[in-house]
Amino acid sequence: MTDLNNLFLGRRTIRKYTQEEIGEDLLNDLLMAGCRSSTTGNMQVYSIIVTRDENKKKALSPLHFNQTMVLEAPVLLTFCADFNRFNRWCLNSSAQPGYDNFLSFMTAAIDALLVAQTLCIAAEARGLGICYLGTTTYMAHKIIDVLRLPKGVIPVTTITLGWPAENPEQTDRLPLEAIVHSEIYTDYSDADIERFYSVKEGRADSLQFIRENNKTSLAQVFTDVRYKREDNVYFSKMLLKVIEDQGFMNNL
Amino acid sequence: MTDLNNLFLGRRTIRKYTQEEIGEDLLNDLLMAGCRSSTTGNMQVYSIIVTRDENKKKALSPLHFNQTMVLEAPVLLTFCADFNRFNRWCLNSSAQPGYDNFLSFMTAAIDALLVAQTLCIAAEARGLGICYLGTTTYMAHKIIDVLRLPKGVIPVTTITLGWPAENPEQTDRLPLEAIVHSEIYTDYSDADIERFYSVKEGRADSLQFIRENNKTSLAQVFTDVRYKREDNVYFSKMLLKVIEDQGFMNNL
Repeated sequence: MTDLNNLFLGRRTIRKYTQEEIGEDLLNDLLMAGCRSSTTGNMQVYSIIVTRDENKKKALSPLHFNQTMVLEAPVLLTFCADFNRFNRWCLNSSAQPGYDNFLSFMTAAIDALLVAQTLCIAAEARGLGICYLGTTTYMAHKIIDVLRLPKGVIPVTTITLGWPAENPEQTDRLPLEAIVHSEIYTDYSDADIERFYSVKEGRADSLQFIRENNKTSLAQVFTDVRYKREDNVYFSKMLLKVIEDQGFMNNL
Repeated sequence: MTDLNNLFLGRRTIRKYTQEEIGEDLLNDLLMAGCRSSTTGNMQVYSIIVTRDENKKKALSPLHFNQTMVLEAPVLLTFCADFNRFNRWCLNSSAQPGYDNFLSFMTAAIDALLVAQTLCIAAEARGLGICYLGTTTYMAHKIIDVLRLPKGVIPVTTITLGWPAENPEQTDRLPLEAIVHSEIYTDYSDADIERFYSVKEGRADSLQFIRENNKTSLAQVFTDVRYKREDNVYFSKMLLKVIEDQGFMNNL
């Protein structure tokens, strides 16, 4: 179990990759592993778009806010909620699909995310490194154009994949007692909150973030700089419009 | 790599469990493994509710459509999108959280699902069996009451966890070429659809489903029996209302 323990407990996100390619056979193994994940009713309502082409990476890069991994990783994988294929099968089988609604989008998004995470762990077990790009839900409307996703298909997350060229420190995590609730959700006291976040707040990099951004608390770095209300509201509107435009808001 | 290959490629969902308990230490190991998953901006905007209590299982069982695993599994884990804790931290740190919107719900849901899937793989690596309950998004409004989830918290998925008391056949999966697209999404021809779904349609259990339900195609079993439009529309409305009621639809 030592190796497995290290796989799970020793993991870290990798943002710098060597120039070594990822062979087709290895990538296929990882995709196969991903596709053994649980899927609602065994419908497999997801698709995976593989990006290796330099020009496609250049087109996607600004949509992921020019994070350097996008151009440097040998492979990008975009995981999509996809009812298009299933709907096509229904229509070809004299069946009327009723999946043009929000629940079906969520079902397909969940399917896609389980595949993504399984693939990530399978990749890390083979020595590869991964990084999730949260920008996919922000810029779904433009990613749809670049990857030519038809109606019924919405990108949910993207990972960069490559051979590690760095070995960063593990980032901090909240204590388990902050995350886990027994039987019912026990809301937090102010003292709980202070205790749970104190390690994070005391880290050297946290103090540097506060200084660099002229803030008085680490939380302000999140609310005023990294994940601002105005951006969240704007991208919320865009994402809801994508869900509607891709055909998942009918009859609601 | 043999064991790892078997972990990923040999996996199957387990719905029957022995009466053996899952020790606290083992469960903690799994929860720790889950919490090493990637998380947006290291915000960890999720919570996990552990259900072991018989009465809580009885309260949850009908919300999961009385699937037998809910009462029989020693442990249920409900994974929740959770901005409540993070918002509380912000407010205690003179920071104004702007996370009462749909994008933030999706961010937190993604976080929660990555944790869930990592925990499942870690559990399977230790010999446990898991089953996802898709009913969580259908019945979120009632699960919120039973688990007493405050504003800012929405259950996204649930797993049952236990020691396997069955070793079922692996279910079928679509061929990889049905799922994976190179560089751009290549839409399907009718011949593609027929080829990709032919194995599934020819299975003995598929033919039995068609017969039992008096249908003429397997797709009709999905559209007319298992995942019907009227149910999907109803549960879509409920889920959108939950997202609004829990405070994720402001300013939109």
